[in-house]
Amino acid sequence: MEVPMNNLETIAKLIRYYSLIMSTEAGSGHPTSSLSAADLMTGLVFGGIFKYNLDDPHHPNNDRLIFSKGHASPLFYSIWAAAGRLMEKELLEFRKFTSPLEGHPTRAFKYTEAATGSLGQGLSIGVGMALNAKYLDKLPYRTYVLLGDSEMAEGSQWEAMEIAAHYKLDNIIGIIDVNRFGQRGETMYGHDLSVYRDRVASFGWEPIVIDGHYMPQILTAFKQGAQAKDKPVMIIAKTLKGKGVSFIEDKNGWHGKPLKKDELARALQELGPIDKSAMGQISKPENLRPAELKASDAQPVSYAPDKPVATRHAYGTALERIYPKFPDMVVLDAEVSNSTYSEIFKSRYPDRFLEMYIAEQNMIGNALGLSTRGKVPFVSTFAAFLTRAFDQIRMSQYSMANIKFCGSHAGVSIGEDGSSQMGLEDIAMFRTLLNSAVLYPSDAVSTEKLVEEMAKHQGISYIRTTRKDTPILYRNDEAFRIGGSKVLRSNKSDVATVVAAGITLHEALKAYEELKQEGLFVKVIDLYSIKPVDAETLVQAARETGLIITVEDHFAEGGLGEAVTSAVSETGVPVYTLAVRMMPRSGKPDELLGYEGISHIAIANAVKDKVKNHIKKR
Amino acid sequence: MEVPMNNLETIAKLIRYYSLIMSTEAGSGHPTSSLSAADLMTGLVFGGIFKYNLDDPHHPNNDRLIFSKGHASPLFYSIWAAAGRLMEKELLEFRKFTSPLEGHPTRAFKYTEAATGSLGQGLSIGVGMALNAKYLDKLPYRTYVLLGDSEMAEGSQWEAMEIAAHYKLDNIIGIIDVNRFGQRGETMYGHDLSVYRDRVASFGWEPIVIDGHYMPQILTAFKQGAQAKDKPVMIIAKTLKGKGVSFIEDKNGWHGKPLKKDELARALQELGPIDKSAMGQISKPENLRPAELKASDAQPVSYAPDKPVATRHAYGTALERIYPKFPDMVVLDAEVSNSTYSEIFKSRYPDRFLEMYIAEQNMIGNALGLSTRGKVPFVSTFAAFLTRAFDQIRMSQYSMANIKFCGSHAGVSIGEDGSSQMGLEDIAMFRTLLNSAVLYPSDAVSTEKLVEEMAKHQGISYIRTTRKDTPILYRNDEAFRIGGSKVLRSNKSDVATVVAAGITLHEALKAYEELKQEGLFVKVIDLYSIKPVDAETLVQAARETGLIITVEDHFAEGGLGEAVTSAVSETGVPVYTLAVRMMPRSGKPDELLGYEGISHIAIANAVKDKVKNHIKKR
Repeated sequence: MEVPMNNLETIAKLIRYYSLIMSTEAGSGHPTSSLSAADLMTGLVFGGIFKYNLDDPHHPNNDRLIFSKGHASPLFYSIWAAAGRLMEKELLEFRKFTSPLEGHPTRAFKYTEAATGSLGQGLSIGVGMALNAKYLDKLPYRTYVLLGDSEMAEGSQWEAMEIAAHYKLDNIIGIIDVNRFGQRGETMYGHDLSVYRDRVASFGWEPIVIDGHYMPQILTAFKQGAQAKDKPVMIIAKTLKGKGVSFIEDKNGWHGKPLKKDELARALQELGPIDKSAMGQISKPENLRPAELKASDAQPVSYAPDKPVATRHAYGTALERIYPKFPDMVVLDAEVSNSTYSEIFKSRYPDRFLEMYIAEQNMIGNALGLSTRGKVPFVSTFAAFLTRAFDQIRMSQYSMANIKFCGSHAGVSIGEDGSSQMGLEDIAMFRTLLNSAVLYPSDAVSTEKLVEEMAKHQGISYIRTTRKDTPILYRNDEAFRIGGSKVLRSNKSDVATVVAAGITLHEALKAYEELKQEGLFVKVIDLYSIKPVDAETLVQAARETGLIITVEDHFAEGGLGEAVTSAVSETGVPVYTLAVRMMPRSGKPDELLGYEGISHIAIANAVKDKVKNHIKKR
Repeated sequence: MEVPMNNLETIAKLIRYYSLIMSTEAGSGHPTSSLSAADLMTGLVFGGIFKYNLDDPHHPNNDRLIFSKGHASPLFYSIWAAAGRLMEKELLEFRKFTSPLEGHPTRAFKYTEAATGSLGQGLSIGVGMALNAKYLDKLPYRTYVLLGDSEMAEGSQWEAMEIAAHYKLDNIIGIIDVNRFGQRGETMYGHDLSVYRDRVASFGWEPIVIDGHYMPQILTAFKQGAQAKDKPVMIIAKTLKGKGVSFIEDKNGWHGKPLKKDELARALQELGPIDKSAMGQISKPENLRPAELKASDAQPVSYAPDKPVATRHAYGTALERIYPKFPDMVVLDAEVSNSTYSEIFKSRYPDRFLEMYIAEQNMIGNALGLSTRGKVPFVSTFAAFLTRAFDQIRMSQYSMANIKFCGSHAGVSIGEDGSSQMGLEDIAMFRTLLNSAVLYPSDAVSTEKLVEEMAKHQGISYIRTTRKDTPILYRNDEAFRIGGSKVLRSNKSDVATVVAAGITLHEALKAYEELKQEGLFVKVIDLYSIKPVDAETLVQAARETGLIITVEDHFAEGGLGEAVTSAVSETGVPVYTLAVRMMPRSGKPDELLGYEGISHIAIANAVKDKVKNHIKKR
């Protein structure tokens, strides 16, 4: 343990000064939430415990600091200013359009590990980083997460707690800033720290209760935290919101309010002389790096053409097959690995598999933490249950996440288990994300190829898999790409184009045969990449056939049908969407496809019906 | 306390028999998860504690029973069979398309309180029912929730726990069926009941640890539970999965697997003689009903035409205004009532307001519980944070929920707080729900009217509100309806139609004026009802102007643009969508509207550009 060289009191005062002036200048922001944790963060970062190479924020052995209470961004930026990496005039650009110092920390600012601001997410992200340190990179860095007391009401926190304890993460230290006030009033427990202590202990963490404004206790707590063994540590600090400025200290009604100019003047007078030349020193970490993993070729895909295979099964097989080529991969699953078939990967590479139990929100947070540490996480559960983590998924896009999602058991075609288990809104959910890839393969070969494309792709991608076995449609050497599609049936006399993906593609192919018997020909497109969508092929098909019918095992809104409709809107060619529109229920897969009007019969009928009307109108 | 008249051992055996035969006949389902809780549920329902009027499942003073572990549906249905309300032949229809006995319980079956099957949701629903009993209906009924041990990993459980304790709900009894196995293996804690006990106690509940197969202990526990005072009770029961059939009992690998025919024969031999004539008696509750609430007229809407008001503020005002007309209303908010302005209602009707703290998942579950008990819950938080509860929202549609959602702070126009606080996927999310209403008013008058329409509407509805003040566009006596729209500008020489809602409608009106200066006229439509969408008006406008431009403060996918594109696809009129397509960030609202290409300038430019191309193509 190095002796702290910094005058912590001087630095804490400087940080308070910065936090106040920058929010007043911005005219918005959260100074009081910053002041309550100013001593805690000063003690942590400049007290000699925290190791960080300021010149190399991406150094793999840096300690990690996450502000789960992202609204304390003035404090966050002030720390880096006190470390000499931001100038006062930069702080005064806080919340302006041209500044990287956004209202809540994002990765536009180089010292931000992950974007926060939706509460209750930082601890999961930190747990991901700590899992990485302990089990994957095997580096001694520690992860620190500053938590608000209000956000401890979020269930996601307790998911992170249980998983951290389960994996015996002795390299993560949480700090709860118990300033007793939320946005609109007091928290459920106010300053009763025993509630937090008991809960934290019952979830397998070591609680350390301190006065969050008394520096010796703060430093002792972090030293204790650094000596943890097989157990995560939670520092529970009693603090005062607005600490240091009498007229806002421990007062309700001051959340998210900057001081007015005159109030600021009074506050600064109270603070007294500020030493702006004070610059906090941070010791560097040992220059350790993770062992380099050698990539090698993946085995080729090899499916018998006549043996149906579920795409969910192909997902598991693909993970196992491509791992040698992508050794940064890590696979996570929420207690359904025997349904998503990620268990195939698990049994071959148990050290690269993390069981996340039934706690989807934390699973996504962990994946984000792993992703920011250079891993390539594949996460899977039922498509329906990914909705549980939509907020975490949404937030991950603001952290430039590189996460690969798999949702199995898509659609009503799962059958007997009924509506609760049917993913019917997953395409809509993943399509909303900026620059996401949304993939929906229909056979094992395309699934394998697309999983490989996902591993190569940088960003958020999603693959949707089907429960039941489906026939092989493609040769093992067929190529697939994100943004592509396949025209599977095409004739000169096509009267319409049927666009489908996944289970409904097989229905479309059946409908093709039935229509052919009646002398009607349709183009059939496998739209395996729903986003980005292959607009070129769709527009051409629209122009060639003058009519498009889409069919999907998903609700009508935000799915394949709307993706196609948007893509061809300019052509003036009408699009008719067959989708799930009736209350789904238990039954046989085929009964349900029929009931929802997305079966081969429904497709053939729609073609005949629409073609008739279409010709009539002309 | 009545003396139980039932032979509980005989009934438990009958229930085991039913659970086994029905899942074998179905060829799928979860018999082992049913057997572990068979004694617990027999003791509860037929042991003399549970009060229920079998002839009147909707009786307001019935005790409530929710299977949060919905996969134990064979057990659930077997209970009602043992009570004489289902015949064996009906059980044998389990999971068939024509049967109300779905794979996971839904409200197709008349004794189901709420659909379950996505784990970790039943407790929140139960808490909503218990809140109703204690604070609204003021009835002595109790709510019982059967929980799986695996699902205790879900954070939502702990949200429900903390809120139940906070509200001192001594009328809810949870039962954790600790059978130690999840779907793919052992839980994190196996049969270590002390972990559950400590956690439950630390969250303010009274834990009662028992042997879940020893009837005297089971009965004592429920008796104890009925005597709770100011504290919820959790019965933590050690059980064996598959209990009663030696070759599946306490064995891994038997989750979600029915017995094969020959295995069933062996199992039934083990069970021994079954008394099918046994019929469990359930005592009726006291015939108490909640006090009737008298409805009276609401005050009329009254806004000054020249004073801008934020639609979020009008939401709060509307709640207060309409309450006399809808006295079943109850308002919930997730610790941001001073931002969503539900606090306006709260300060007038504090007894009808429930503070839900920062725990959105539980808030929705509670709202569902309240809704099933006949209340009209309005729930609010930032639109972005409703994504936190997408799984609960999704599931609520399968419970025929009558919930009114409000998401405030929609879009990039919130400005400085940055991306984490911006609702940019909420329209897509709520549009996916079957038969949902998605509303997005642009001024205070339309907000007031639409909140009132929501109160009248039966089902799931969503209203999206804007942070900043916006001008009043409508007279106080203007009428609005779910499914409607308003044509605000229309001329004979319109070259295009601009469709907008909320903040962008004001941009569209500015663009109208600018284009008019250049001699270009456009139709402007306020699409305040995005779902159901006013297809008739849109199609007519499309045909009249030959070109549509949509503009929305929402991501491009699944929003207003795609709703319009789908609605007019048949016309062959192209639709161009202006939406949020760049990584959002902090800044001034107008800067962000400009940056995302959804400002009045962007609209005017798009009109000019597209009209030019459009004419050229003709």
